[in-house]
Amino acid sequence: MEFSEYFPVWGSMTPQQQQTISASLVSRTVKKGAVLHSGGAGCTGLLLIKTGQLRAFILSKEGREVTLYRLFDRDICLFSASCIMRSIQFDVTISAEKDTQLWVLPSDVYKQMMEQSACVANYTSEIMASRFSEVMWLMEQVMWNSMDRRVAAFLLEEAAIQAADRLPITHESIANHLGTHREVVTRILRYLQSEGMVRLTRGAVELTDRAKLETLGSE
Amino acid sequence: MEFSEYFPVWGSMTPQQQQTISASLVSRTVKKGAVLHSGGAGCTGLLLIKTGQLRAFILSKEGREVTLYRLFDRDICLFSASCIMRSIQFDVTISAEKDTQLWVLPSDVYKQMMEQSACVANYTSEIMASRFSEVMWLMEQVMWNSMDRRVAAFLLEEAAIQAADRLPITHESIANHLGTHREVVTRILRYLQSEGMVRLTRGAVELTDRAKLETLGSE
Repeated sequence: MEFSEYFPVWGSMTPQQQQTISASLVSRTVKKGAVLHSGGAGCTGLLLIKTGQLRAFILSKEGREVTLYRLFDRDICLFSASCIMRSIQFDVTISAEKDTQLWVLPSDVYKQMMEQSACVANYTSEIMASRFSEVMWLMEQVMWNSMDRRVAAFLLEEAAIQAADRLPITHESIANHLGTHREVVTRILRYLQSEGMVRLTRGAVELTDRAKLETLGSE
Repeated sequence: MEFSEYFPVWGSMTPQQQQTISASLVSRTVKKGAVLHSGGAGCTGLLLIKTGQLRAFILSKEGREVTLYRLFDRDICLFSASCIMRSIQFDVTISAEKDTQLWVLPSDVYKQMMEQSACVANYTSEIMASRFSEVMWLMEQVMWNSMDRRVAAFLLEEAAIQAADRLPITHESIANHLGTHREVVTRILRYLQSEGMVRLTRGAVELTDRAKLETLGSE
């Protein structure tokens, strides 16, 4: 597949602009676990995912993490190119959750396209609005929902992403997604197990009663 | 003052566009306490503040509130016109914290300008990025900071906004800004008083040791 088929506003660009983009695109393959963009450290560029999965998260001074959102096939990662807008005043870390193939478009080239084309500029706004919506969903979760509901919602989301009921995930990793401590997650998972919603095995959590988890997660 | 002096990208627009905007602008005066835009209820339009102060917040099903950010003179409120972008999938309530004079620009007119002008579109992105940054700051506060630090940071912010050390504010109102319960705020304020950082009087909180509050708030 070509970049033109992945980039929704390609058709709105002039041949000259298309040529500039094609000439500056870089294909990259990154291994699961690799960090693609690290907080305030420079401007990596716009990332467009061919296949794979990325995670955007924030880090506390003490190294605690909270997942903001995930990016999948055909998604665009804007905050790895945060220097395209001076008002983006926060640091996001991007890592690969699966082996991922992607294109990198240098920030200055993209910025130039935004300045030339209302269509590209509005598309960029839509991407940002979409990430903003995900962060607002998280904000509501954090503000109004107790951690047991957030764990239930996380397990269901994870099961949907992996299309499986058995999730090979550690308690530590769940804690890092949700911005809490491993001990808290372990206590909640044991409670969920005692209620028949999950089964805990070494290195995995198995969903055994989705309906009950859904009721808890959306309460 | 004219709208053209408040709207930074006015000069980049065609005379035709300027005329369209001028013809559709509505001047409004709202009283302190008025709700200008309520969550998912329609699309109020873009608000541009002449003088005054607005508050953007989210509401839980139970009526709890959390302040996302404040808007001051010359600020633009984008999320009261959330229908200009389909990817804005969250509800924000906007109310007046002071008597406020503002312009309302209908959403469809603004959307048309965004589609015609890369400059207006990029300006819109910058506004959104700026609000996004404020929400991310809040997210970090909520995730990593304990409530006593958040109360300290809130009191300092409020003192800066009001340019006063004596804040006529109730414990209930502080709780609504921070998304917690009045009892929690009262307990923390009493602790801050016992440490000499504030003095509590009927209907007011007085900052008595800013340096100590700043140390706590930025820890």
